[in-house]
Amino acid sequence: MNNTPLQFAARLDKQQVEQGNALAPKFDDNGLIPAIATDYASGELLMVAYMNEEALKQTIALGEAVYYSRSRQELWHKGATSGHVQKVIEIRVDCDQDAIWLRVDQQGSGACHVGYRSCFYRAVDRDQLGQTDSIPLKLAEQEKAFDPAQVYRK
Amino acid sequence: MNNTPLQFAARLDKQQVEQGNALAPKFDDNGLIPAIATDYASGELLMVAYMNEEALKQTIALGEAVYYSRSRQELWHKGATSGHVQKVIEIRVDCDQDAIWLRVDQQGSGACHVGYRSCFYRAVDRDQLGQTDSIPLKLAEQEKAFDPAQVYRK
Repeated sequence: MNNTPLQFAARLDKQQVEQGNALAPKFDDNGLIPAIATDYASGELLMVAYMNEEALKQTIALGEAVYYSRSRQELWHKGATSGHVQKVIEIRVDCDQDAIWLRVDQQGSGACHVGYRSCFYRAVDRDQLGQTDSIPLKLAEQEKAFDPAQVYRK
Repeated sequence: MNNTPLQFAARLDKQQVEQGNALAPKFDDNGLIPAIATDYASGELLMVAYMNEEALKQTIALGEAVYYSRSRQELWHKGATSGHVQKVIEIRVDCDQDAIWLRVDQQGSGACHVGYRSCFYRAVDRDQLGQTDSIPLKLAEQEKAFDPAQVYRK
């Protein structure tokens, strides 16, 4: 899977980047591009992660989400440990090609290492604004989808 | 709207950040956090932008999306020029609190300055992979939702 022959296009000008029909992604100063994964069926936002060039190429070639772990500084085939692989149904790119959207079929019970289906399991609790010292959150998912201690056991 | 009294919580440890009930966002070295906007009704991913501390506080206080424009280096009340305001229905944060999800009611006909409803109007064309020099894209939205020349006219 290393050094897949897939090639990105060069970024020439605004017209080509925004209206063209070739993938010409912009990686940031750290060589990364944000990648947003949503559930293909429900539309639910599952997670936000990052890809480097090789992660994006492997994702396209493999049809499963491969990210770059900023904390571990290595390619991260999502689900390799937990079994919670993300089958990629569609890969989209935005207007200026500096963000990637993966529409995925999430295998297993969840995407988040904490145990929830989505990493976005908390919402700002507007009803409690001003009642606490800092901006309050409330649970948006009521129950964890799996037990991380079981899934990530050694 | 400047210097709203809303306060973020300090980031103490993994347990508090992941399981706590206070908003303790992590801004990157440039003082920014990615913010993903989806359509509240359809679930469609509309855009990915960035917020600094003040943009996030103003978004919470105002109930409309306020981003930070990296190109213009200023606060960006989305829709102030185009009328395409994003009414915020819910604000979520992810497990490690380094990404924001806005579920919005998109006013007007679209979120993207190019004229499409979503910024993610192109998808990797898997059927044409290997047929072109670089990774091919195809349109995922068939028609523009509005004419940018009319909406952004001087």
